[in-house]
Amino acid sequence: MMNAVKKLYDANTRGNYICVGLDTDLNKIPKHLLIEKNPVAEFNRQIIEATKSSAAAYKINLAFYECYGTEGLKNLEETLAAIPSNILIISDGKRGDIGNTSKMYAKSFYEHFKFDSATLNPLMGKDSLEPFLEYSDKLNFILALTSNPGSIDFQKEELKNGEKLFQYTIKKIIEWNVNSNCGIVFGATNLEELSDNLHLIKNLPILIPGIGAQGGDLNELTKTLFGAGINSFLVNVSRGIIYKCKNEKFAEEAAKELVSLNKIVNKSKK
Amino acid sequence: MMNAVKKLYDANTRGNYICVGLDTDLNKIPKHLLIEKNPVAEFNRQIIEATKSSAAAYKINLAFYECYGTEGLKNLEETLAAIPSNILIISDGKRGDIGNTSKMYAKSFYEHFKFDSATLNPLMGKDSLEPFLEYSDKLNFILALTSNPGSIDFQKEELKNGEKLFQYTIKKIIEWNVNSNCGIVFGATNLEELSDNLHLIKNLPILIPGIGAQGGDLNELTKTLFGAGINSFLVNVSRGIIYKCKNEKFAEEAAKELVSLNKIVNKSKK
Repeated sequence: MMNAVKKLYDANTRGNYICVGLDTDLNKIPKHLLIEKNPVAEFNRQIIEATKSSAAAYKINLAFYECYGTEGLKNLEETLAAIPSNILIISDGKRGDIGNTSKMYAKSFYEHFKFDSATLNPLMGKDSLEPFLEYSDKLNFILALTSNPGSIDFQKEELKNGEKLFQYTIKKIIEWNVNSNCGIVFGATNLEELSDNLHLIKNLPILIPGIGAQGGDLNELTKTLFGAGINSFLVNVSRGIIYKCKNEKFAEEAAKELVSLNKIVNKSKK
Repeated sequence: MMNAVKKLYDANTRGNYICVGLDTDLNKIPKHLLIEKNPVAEFNRQIIEATKSSAAAYKINLAFYECYGTEGLKNLEETLAAIPSNILIISDGKRGDIGNTSKMYAKSFYEHFKFDSATLNPLMGKDSLEPFLEYSDKLNFILALTSNPGSIDFQKEELKNGEKLFQYTIKKIIEWNVNSNCGIVFGATNLEELSDNLHLIKNLPILIPGIGAQGGDLNELTKTLFGAGINSFLVNVSRGIIYKCKNEKFAEEAAKELVSLNKIVNKSKK
């Protein structure tokens, strides 16, 4: 299987920077799909078919599948099967637990479902992530600063040494990156904050949520990144792509939107 | 459905303080069960049947079920069906995500699977937990200090105001407890630390991991709690109960161990 970091590198080299977030909600997909046997899987299949040449990655928000029990897992499996093997697939579950438990999660994501990458919550510390970090061919996106309002509650708290918790987290992630398989999640809701911290992030691949439904500006964001010499990143867009249009043309319109977002990114490079 | 806090209160009143952790691993259950159609579910069913009169709660470690995909979910469903409705059932998944995602997780745990309680990771802040906190009849155990070595990495970091992150977390949880449906997870690996912080925890129900396989001492722990007037808590024991014996007598031996642990707790009360 191809190394996950390599998949990201190849996508970025092709000019693809947008990660398509498959937060697929049965209540939000076009109504004409509801006659299908597995409407969610069919929606995803059509989205993937239409977007696969321009998607830098697909991010599967596990909550949207788990909430339907065994049926949801079937949708997950069918979705994974529809994604070409050269495209990075991220399991977005923000897991993190004691060692023997994280080991089970890592096995589940990386062996059973064969994801390339996973989002992880570092609150429980190094040993809680180690079972994931041992998979040297995978890419572990660890939460540093998230894009939601609650990021202020703990992530932006100031430590005794003057650093914010998320800054301290980034330093820890760099320490833990001995297998070159760590990345970070850093929200795009405050560009100045991102800009001020890029020197800490160094060469870690960045997964950036917060564009679109959550309010961030794509052009300004990617200008900032390229301007600082950062070339390895993914900007996640979920609802802004997959629900761009709610009728029969949803997949075509999702692809158009993706192409247009990629254009904005590539234009900001120059 | 009975209020979750009430279930905990009733269990404690009956002298039951031990939460049986169902971290059931196909590779660790007695070999004679492997001929069963669903060995994990059968193991759990026998454990539950033998322990239900003395268990204060059951905690289901989701990783151990999710890692087997649809088959694992079937095991989860069969396990849940075997637990009497008056006993608290905790979903141990340590979730926490942006609002629309946490909403899906909350719906999954509290509506689809009908758990009474869930363990939650607070790193993403208040809005990441709110969808859970809105279920006023449930009991949300939020991570403050965990029992693993990595708790030192972030949870014990000192903030600018002199508090440790876990202490600040406890204060936030108390603020968020407007529906009286919050509890905390506080590891038992350092009793002095627990003792020093009980004044912060006040009346929040406590879920205490770290006894048994992880090294904490039960008698000292519960002496400390009762001594400080704390009466609403659960001490989780997983491997120490369910894998006490690895042959045909596993369920009987698990029940004996549970009764004996409960005795230690009740003796320490006096």
